Amino acid sequence: MPLITEILAEASSLVEPDERERRLVSETAKRLLSVCRDEFQQLEGVVDISVEGSVAKDTWVKGKAEVDIFIHFKPEVGRQGLEAAVLSAGGRVIERLSGRHWLRYASHPYVEGEVSGIRVNIVGCFKAEPGRWISAVDRTPYHTAFVNSRLTPELRRDIRLFKGFLIGCGLYGAEIRVEGFSGYLSELLVLSHGGFLETVRRASSWRMPVFIDMAGRLRLEEALKLFPKAPLIFNDPVDPSRNVAAAVSESKLAEFILACKIFNSSPSLSFFQPPKPWGKELAADVGSRNLLGIAFTVERRQPPDILWGEIKHTLRGFARRLEKEGFQVYRCDAWQLSDEVVLLYELSSLSLPENVLKVGPPVWMDNSLEFIEKTMSRPNRVAGPWVEGERLYSIVRRDESSAEQLLRSWIKRREVAISKELLNSVERGEILTSRTGLVERLSRDKGHEALLREFLEGIATPIRHWIKRC
Amino acid sequence: MPLITEILAEASSLVEPDERERRLVSETAKRLLSVCRDEFQQLEGVVDISVEGSVAKDTWVKGKAEVDIFIHFKPEVGRQGLEAAVLSAGGRVIERLSGRHWLRYASHPYVEGEVSGIRVNIVGCFKAEPGRWISAVDRTPYHTAFVNSRLTPELRRDIRLFKGFLIGCGLYGAEIRVEGFSGYLSELLVLSHGGFLETVRRASSWRMPVFIDMAGRLRLEEALKLFPKAPLIFNDPVDPSRNVAAAVSESKLAEFILACKIFNSSPSLSFFQPPKPWGKELAADVGSRNLLGIAFTVERRQPPDILWGEIKHTLRGFARRLEKEGFQVYRCDAWQLSDEVVLLYELSSLSLPENVLKVGPPVWMDNSLEFIEKTMSRPNRVAGPWVEGERLYSIVRRDESSAEQLLRSWIKRREVAISKELLNSVERGEILTSRTGLVERLSRDKGHEALLREFLEGIATPIRHWIKRC
Repeated sequence: MPLITEILAEASSLVEPDERERRLVSETAKRLLSVCRDEFQQLEGVVDISVEGSVAKDTWVKGKAEVDIFIHFKPEVGRQGLEAAVLSAGGRVIERLSGRHWLRYASHPYVEGEVSGIRVNIVGCFKAEPGRWISAVDRTPYHTAFVNSRLTPELRRDIRLFKGFLIGCGLYGAEIRVEGFSGYLSELLVLSHGGFLETVRRASSWRMPVFIDMAGRLRLEEALKLFPKAPLIFNDPVDPSRNVAAAVSESKLAEFILACKIFNSSPSLSFFQPPKPWGKELAADVGSRNLLGIAFTVERRQPPDILWGEIKHTLRGFARRLEKEGFQVYRCDAWQLSDEVVLLYELSSLSLPENVLKVGPPVWMDNSLEFIEKTMSRPNRVAGPWVEGERLYSIVRRDESSAEQLLRSWIKRREVAISKELLNSVERGEILTSRTGLVERLSRDKGHEALLREFLEGIATPIRHWIKRC
Repeated sequence: MPLITEILAEASSLVEPDERERRLVSETAKRLLSVCRDEFQQLEGVVDISVEGSVAKDTWVKGKAEVDIFIHFKPEVGRQGLEAAVLSAGGRVIERLSGRHWLRYASHPYVEGEVSGIRVNIVGCFKAEPGRWISAVDRTPYHTAFVNSRLTPELRRDIRLFKGFLIGCGLYGAEIRVEGFSGYLSELLVLSHGGFLETVRRASSWRMPVFIDMAGRLRLEEALKLFPKAPLIFNDPVDPSRNVAAAVSESKLAEFILACKIFNSSPSLSFFQPPKPWGKELAADVGSRNLLGIAFTVERRQPPDILWGEIKHTLRGFARRLEKEGFQVYRCDAWQLSDEVVLLYELSSLSLPENVLKVGPPVWMDNSLEFIEKTMSRPNRVAGPWVEGERLYSIVRRDESSAEQLLRSWIKRREVAISKELLNSVERGEILTSRTGLVERLSRDKGHEALLREFLEGIATPIRHWIKRC
């Protein structure tokens, strides 16, 4: 096993940008800043223009630079004034630099674009005192200042290693699709533990809920009351009432803890690179897997966070409905490839038993005689009613037992929680099972085939880094 | 609908013994008493001989008389002395009356026999002061005295109606096979409510746990502490620390409440007669039922309460094992016909899904990496390990999925809770399913066929009295 220092040295070369990249990023930032000054400074209410984010902190991962330009407005300008100014002047800036650009909506709209092959964002914020925030991004300049005031060259390297580790394990990104770790959270974790290895070592023995307070301003009990459902609480040094880790889901935090455990006991360079797609052929015994899939087409103009909110809501909606009906849902996942979305479920079986147990009321309830009369008059009664414990029960024959047919009728009759915005797409979509061509249909496209193969293996990314060498 | 008074008048004629029966019972009791005096009175320590039970109280149901003769011993005689005396002299008594007799073991042995076609029991008890009981039957003479001191002709009729109602609903008898209402409990219920209709009306709105204290000597909280799991608590007026209803199971109490509710809303004579066996042919669609049965032969010399304790223990043992493995057990039942016992289960399916979800440890547990290594090295691994919530999961292929085969191997490997005394019988028994001849096998015998038909209908007895007229 190579020494951990050797692994980290090699990993550094994967995450540290080289001179050429640094120069390109720094020049692009300078040009943007200059054109922004030209376009924005004469506008009413603009008080400052700055570079923020990982470029301002020199903490971006090789090949992943994004230049964030923030235009600071006086509060008096108002939301609408800020938005109108950013969207029109922001677009002009990028056009003058011969870049492409488009609109994005997060908590408020901003201009996203590409200049010299580098992603740039032009964002408007209000100049606000801490605690008197107007928009969600007003804290960003304070985040930049806070992190920069504590950085050393060693910590920069370690932050890049940590981000590379998270990327390699599929855990980087606060967007809804990922539900993982934001850049700022990654930086704070390394800062608060004093380095990459220290963070990974400590995290390997975390147990949820995890609470970290760099500023020492909150007690555990207060934190648990403020953020009752959060598996990871890292209160923002710039704003103690905010949880920097709010986007991290329980599953992603658990995968992170697992990744740290595995890396600790068996470190390797592999963790710093996303695993390659499964090279294996689709297993021959896929026929024994009970897969149910829904494939549908979506409009691509929606911002990813909106779309993925809807996808995840719908994914869970079908899972809950299937379970309510009696199916055992072993696992589910969703992916998007260009405008095609696939929701995929692995079930214990693609059909339910023909007969189903009906749980009636306790005998002492007013409606117990009603249950008996109703049961006796059902043409699909198989057995009962009988009494067990304090309750009545009966067995009736199901009208429909196939998952595929049930899904069709739930969608048709609106008996399942589908995001309103996806309803039409899902209705026009295809419902497939491993008995009715799901594998063949998805294998027509190399991208879908790779994702299906990954789903079939079903191995968490951190584990894939390990077993490669088992 | 006939008037309730007409129904009760007709029911009375079903439960009140006629003159001929009264004469026969009374003469038999007299003859027994006289021969017992002859055989027992010269024995050391015998202080009294009496008739007890429903004959002494004139509360037996037509055709169901049992003459209980109690031989009262001084405590100094001791258990062994009492047993030896009762077994030898008791047998001689019945021989002298040209009856048949055999031994019975309840809490202590007694002689059971038949004289002039009437069941007789010769039981030894100790003459004990209340609260200083030596054997379990020492309270009986006090029970007889207590009930007799409160009886009127009207209450006698109502007690017989109530017992007839319980018999008609399959709820009469404190033996383990029934887990229902003893004669003494039935008498106390009618006495404490003041009549048959009053009892049924009150009971129809019972909710468990039910607590009745005729003597007013116990508070509810005390009762619930003394008898924490009893669904029905009726503390003995002769011994407040004893629950007269200890034998009543939750299911049987619930069936009783249901029977009272139905009778109240729709009274009929039907409730006073056990329902006739189902006349219907075995349903043609029995093939869609997932039945699993175990038929085995037992030695008949065991007392029924011992045997039925073992049968019920074993019945539950298999049910728990099946559920643990992933089968859904809709219902189960057991019956005994001469020396043949049948345990019968209705399942949602006779086979489990090919693949099974394995729930691993939470990621923060010490053994989480072990679970991963173990899973990856399993030749039957299908998918995983993956992370969901805080836990690891995987899917593996089952070695065996048929209920029948699993049952065989559990019995062989002693991996199921079977009563020790039934182990050999079960091992030599037949395991049958509705796919492998269960229906054909049981239909060979008219008795088994009738019970199978009843199981397949699965309708609680009180409900059968109702739907007859629906």
